Amino acid sequence: MGIREEALKLHKEKKGKLEIKLKMDIKNKKDLSLAYTPGVAQVCREIAEDKNKVFDYTIKNNTVAVVTDGSAVLGLGNIGPEASLPVMEGKCALFKEFANIDAFPICLDTQDAKEIIDIVKKISPGFGGINLEDISAPRCFEVEEALQDIGIPVFHDDQHGTAIVVLAALINAARVVGKKIENLKIVISGSGAAGIAVSKMLLCFNIDKKICIPVKNIILMDSKGAVYHCRENLNKTKKLMATITNAECTGKEYDSENEKCRNCQRGELEKALEGADVFIGVSKGGLMRKEMIKKMNPKPIIFALANPIPEIMPDEAKVEGAAVIGTGRSDYPNQINNVLVFPGIFKGALEANARVINNEMKIAAANALASCVDNPTAEKIIADPFDKEVVKRVSEAVKNAAIETGAVKSR
Amino acid sequence: MGIREEALKLHKEKKGKLEIKLKMDIKNKKDLSLAYTPGVAQVCREIAEDKNKVFDYTIKNNTVAVVTDGSAVLGLGNIGPEASLPVMEGKCALFKEFANIDAFPICLDTQDAKEIIDIVKKISPGFGGINLEDISAPRCFEVEEALQDIGIPVFHDDQHGTAIVVLAALINAARVVGKKIENLKIVISGSGAAGIAVSKMLLCFNIDKKICIPVKNIILMDSKGAVYHCRENLNKTKKLMATITNAECTGKEYDSENEKCRNCQRGELEKALEGADVFIGVSKGGLMRKEMIKKMNPKPIIFALANPIPEIMPDEAKVEGAAVIGTGRSDYPNQINNVLVFPGIFKGALEANARVINNEMKIAAANALASCVDNPTAEKIIADPFDKEVVKRVSEAVKNAAIETGAVKSR
Repeated sequence: MGIREEALKLHKEKKGKLEIKLKMDIKNKKDLSLAYTPGVAQVCREIAEDKNKVFDYTIKNNTVAVVTDGSAVLGLGNIGPEASLPVMEGKCALFKEFANIDAFPICLDTQDAKEIIDIVKKISPGFGGINLEDISAPRCFEVEEALQDIGIPVFHDDQHGTAIVVLAALINAARVVGKKIENLKIVISGSGAAGIAVSKMLLCFNIDKKICIPVKNIILMDSKGAVYHCRENLNKTKKLMATITNAECTGKEYDSENEKCRNCQRGELEKALEGADVFIGVSKGGLMRKEMIKKMNPKPIIFALANPIPEIMPDEAKVEGAAVIGTGRSDYPNQINNVLVFPGIFKGALEANARVINNEMKIAAANALASCVDNPTAEKIIADPFDKEVVKRVSEAVKNAAIETGAVKSR
Repeated sequence: MGIREEALKLHKEKKGKLEIKLKMDIKNKKDLSLAYTPGVAQVCREIAEDKNKVFDYTIKNNTVAVVTDGSAVLGLGNIGPEASLPVMEGKCALFKEFANIDAFPICLDTQDAKEIIDIVKKISPGFGGINLEDISAPRCFEVEEALQDIGIPVFHDDQHGTAIVVLAALINAARVVGKKIENLKIVISGSGAAGIAVSKMLLCFNIDKKICIPVKNIILMDSKGAVYHCRENLNKTKKLMATITNAECTGKEYDSENEKCRNCQRGELEKALEGADVFIGVSKGGLMRKEMIKKMNPKPIIFALANPIPEIMPDEAKVEGAAVIGTGRSDYPNQINNVLVFPGIFKGALEANARVINNEMKIAAANALASCVDNPTAEKIIADPFDKEVVKRVSEAVKNAAIETGAVKSR
């Protein structure tokens, strides 16, 4: 039986992946009077008097909503809220398995940004954190930004989880090839949620320079080629990206008199890869042809993260001279997977009682994750998802960063 | 340690009552590839092709949202969404313990009926049913009504759970005192969600007469006294109730020429109770004075359901001649408690794949619950919450009624 059939059979047999478990017995009238009426009334009164006590007496302290609108699910696209539920359940299962966080799926029957924002705000009293999931770009940016002040951490995993794990992998890959991160020329294929977030993180955009080594030369690609400042019909997000990427053609060098860009990197992937040190694919399977690797600088680093089919298959990339290769797949070395990040990020944030997950916490997570591999090699730049050290180090680093940056709630 | 202190201690120690449990192992890469990517993609595809399959492959088939706006929590009133969470968790715990249903609390930071309706609709893809809880009247009526067509059962427990358990208790109490239900004069004190729903159910309002024995004489009371047709400033719901209760003063007997009511039962509880057979209190502790019982017919039935302090204490009512006494409390005989109803109602509805919980299903639940006591006596008119027979009989009756009345989803 193939993996597809086996997965179908398992899901049908179990009817989903999650269930509720009681943390206290309700076996007799005494139990009932403590867990429910009349005893519970006193718990309610305490919280009514001081809302902060909801963290002491309820599941809020350890509960995360995994919220989607079903618009960008895995590589499957806009399949809607019902069809996204198996993925959201899976995410919740990983939260529990890896960080002992109780997560619950909320699949929304709307793809309107304002409605998503409104609903998340209004269901937030019962949750300690919100993990936004599989919401397509650029809507996801608007949704996440609008939710940063609701008092509990809101984190779009497809953006920041990916960015953090990519940065961690790149820190170690750069060590393997003996290059400095700040000198790398990086081509990022895909400018959806993940591509944008990876670019921002590598550029240390919005991040205190003290804790971040910025890459200077990034070319961001979408389906129409390189994103550059004067390209027509760029959306708001890509317009911003065009001012901070494509170093030879940023806003500063915009020739407003002639209304023309100078020195822009334009055109297709093959051209952008000339002289590049790193390819990061968060786009479409099979998109990178093997001859493109030849155009890159010596010891190229290839992260082909499209799932389940990478932009280029690892075996092929290796033959063409790739020095370090990462994918999103578990059946090749160097699986660059969000599951290395989100359990620890939320564990640290919840334990610190953080209001937000700020950039410093994200950078701390990336460094902690990179540190889980003692001596990186081409075959081992990133820890295994089942390495218990990962959640431990990431959550501690995130917790400390939250406290140091004052991101914690006053209680 | 008193019950309050013990409940506080327990909640603080456990940090809430619920947690998530995995139904499948995620201990290695193989498990991960089945529960999550790449295996889960095939499950998504199947549901994307046929939305109904979400019931086969996900938690939707057995998951209920317990939704509140925190506006009418226990006897505590409008304490808001955070402070209501301990009660909602308790409710979810009871769902699991009594019916093995996985329920999850959703505490909304809005008390606007339209917003509540909208949010419930939009979070419904992941749930198999919605239990509305502790939403104040008359808002709860609007919310529930507007949600009857969303394709999954929506049930406001404070209304119908209470109405069903009261009807079941009354069926057996009437047997004990040897009176016929249809001949009883019943005074209902309290015209919030519970009082209105109990009245409607006893009157068989909207219910097929074939399966229902209607009471003819009900006086509904609120804090201003009897609800009658010409009383000023009645809200929409009470206006409707005034046309179907207060038999001597219904709309039919309204004297439109003189714009006056004739023969209306007006005034206070004491007056209404003259010649009454049954008092049902869903109002305020201590509201019934013992001398009022003397005004009632012989062998009066007293259901004093205010919690934790009943309208009249059972010992006192007994001394004054009450033949059958029920309360909401677990420390007296005849605990008339919703927990006898909602687990079985939802279990039956989910097993039948019902679209709604219709009146026939509710009546079936009441009769099934009444049948759990073989030979009712004054001290035993209703089953014990821990009697395993209750959920079994109620859920089977509800399931059958759903199928017989065509309330099931076409699959």
